[in-house]
Amino acid sequence: MTGSIEDTYRNQPVLVTGGLGFIGSNLARRLADLGACVTVVDSLVPQYGGNLFNLAGYEDRVRINIADMRDIHSMDYLVRGRSYLFNLAGQVSHLDSMTDPHTDLEINCRAQLSLLEACRRNNPEVKIIYSGTRQIYGRPRRLPVDETHPPDPVDVNGVNKLAGEWYHLVYHRSYGLNTVSLRLTNTYGPRLRVRDARQTFLGWWLRQIVEGQTLKIFGDGEQKRDFNHVSDVVEALLLAGAHSPGGEIYNLGADEAVSLNHLAALLIELNGGGNCEWQPFPPERKAIDIGDYQGNYGRIHQALGWRPRVSLREGLCQTLEYYRQHWQHYWDE
Amino acid sequence: MTGSIEDTYRNQPVLVTGGLGFIGSNLARRLADLGACVTVVDSLVPQYGGNLFNLAGYEDRVRINIADMRDIHSMDYLVRGRSYLFNLAGQVSHLDSMTDPHTDLEINCRAQLSLLEACRRNNPEVKIIYSGTRQIYGRPRRLPVDETHPPDPVDVNGVNKLAGEWYHLVYHRSYGLNTVSLRLTNTYGPRLRVRDARQTFLGWWLRQIVEGQTLKIFGDGEQKRDFNHVSDVVEALLLAGAHSPGGEIYNLGADEAVSLNHLAALLIELNGGGNCEWQPFPPERKAIDIGDYQGNYGRIHQALGWRPRVSLREGLCQTLEYYRQHWQHYWDE
Repeated sequence: MTGSIEDTYRNQPVLVTGGLGFIGSNLARRLADLGACVTVVDSLVPQYGGNLFNLAGYEDRVRINIADMRDIHSMDYLVRGRSYLFNLAGQVSHLDSMTDPHTDLEINCRAQLSLLEACRRNNPEVKIIYSGTRQIYGRPRRLPVDETHPPDPVDVNGVNKLAGEWYHLVYHRSYGLNTVSLRLTNTYGPRLRVRDARQTFLGWWLRQIVEGQTLKIFGDGEQKRDFNHVSDVVEALLLAGAHSPGGEIYNLGADEAVSLNHLAALLIELNGGGNCEWQPFPPERKAIDIGDYQGNYGRIHQALGWRPRVSLREGLCQTLEYYRQHWQHYWDE
Repeated sequence: MTGSIEDTYRNQPVLVTGGLGFIGSNLARRLADLGACVTVVDSLVPQYGGNLFNLAGYEDRVRINIADMRDIHSMDYLVRGRSYLFNLAGQVSHLDSMTDPHTDLEINCRAQLSLLEACRRNNPEVKIIYSGTRQIYGRPRRLPVDETHPPDPVDVNGVNKLAGEWYHLVYHRSYGLNTVSLRLTNTYGPRLRVRDARQTFLGWWLRQIVEGQTLKIFGDGEQKRDFNHVSDVVEALLLAGAHSPGGEIYNLGADEAVSLNHLAALLIELNGGGNCEWQPFPPERKAIDIGDYQGNYGRIHQALGWRPRVSLREGLCQTLEYYRQHWQHYWDE
């Protein structure tokens, strides 16, 4: 591992798919700060996470190209000449993947294959960093979950995200494409989609607490999750792009898993007030619930020196502040 | 486990996708013999395995419906009222999945999702038997390979077949569809596609030896495979349909893995003459070769009493005889 993150990305042409979304926009801003020549691609599909405000203040430093990953010809062109491709575009709602499995397939499988084909044909040297997900593990058989845990997805989104990751591995092994995958766990922070509960419950809670509404907890609230602040996830993506060999897969994760009850209490404390209530799981959510989860990030720590730095308290505090200030860009009154 | 195979299928409405193909047609014939009311669906895509001659003599006892699995409206209708659905349609060429990954995706992923959606909406009681593949395991880490071996596909076909299988599991867990998957290993026997080497090398060898051509072996020929005769595979499918609970996955496999050198020698012996020669692996085949493979069929033996009955010698002998007699229906002069 040689060279700093700054040295790696300065003046480099970088493409970020899903770059107006939550993680993509945070990454694009950081890359611009590092001196990279960043282009983001985003489809701005309504109801997904893309939001032009996510790049507010960076309009002159990041090139924004509105296009859909499913559009083969656009992607054929856009991948050319890039040194790094952060592949963050995706359909991320587990519920939507069950009600509309074909759209999930189009975005998380077909568009991924098209992107890899575009790179193979037009830019086989590009370093590709794919954002995978802990969802592929399904209900964990042991905790914390490391990368050898067998995949066992519980919903169509989990199946398709796993296929998307494996395409990246197959293109590495068969064609030598320089691909790496991070399996993200729950990520939160500024620019998270908070409009409704279709994607992440934490996003929905953030909106509710800022609006003074009661937080709803499904089940007894003792199910545990681990949370990474988006700045830590961005750091992991940058490290993987800079230093990981091709063909690798790394889990992210946090040092502690917290129950939803604990998380709600912390949010209410940091907000200086609020309420929560418990409700039975709606059946469509119960069917795809995974119980407790915590990721083991030992492999990426060992290989790339990554570990999460932002505490949940500090990160939630800063996130709440962001939405208090900018809420009108994330939901209608 | 109660009731014989005969009792299970007699007078039952059964749908077989890919029913003009190799395994599908052998299954359809057996089902007709058992007194089932069989409909086969097949697209007759040129270059795939569908062949009307495969149902020769059964035209009055099996209803043939030409349609493509990708055709949602046809499938929506065709699944209705069936008690059993043997889902054998697929793109099976590993090489083709690399040169045309999108078609493989359409057939092995998109059409599978459409079929499951069609069943969920129109016939949620149907028992669905999916034909998976040992290809999902990639290069085995241990032999023989049981169902707990981690999936690690080496080509796009392996990724997509695994996704197809997982959709079946997800629809079982989330919607209660009664799905089961068999992971087939190398299957051979009458009605195998033998036109060229795009799908199975053994099919190609069968044609070559009947034509008096020299068999070509890639590499040193010491790579091992296990082979199931199609009548044994048909029996496994019938047992799984009759007796397996939903959500199960079973490997098939043979008692012995044999090297390609051994297989070639056996073919030449049974043919009463012939030659073989060794060639270096073409690079596009080397990239997706999996080394040795043998499946552990202990789980299906335990659960359903299945084991392979037809010896390789006996099966090859009968298969050679079939192609000597019917070759003109399987290749042009």
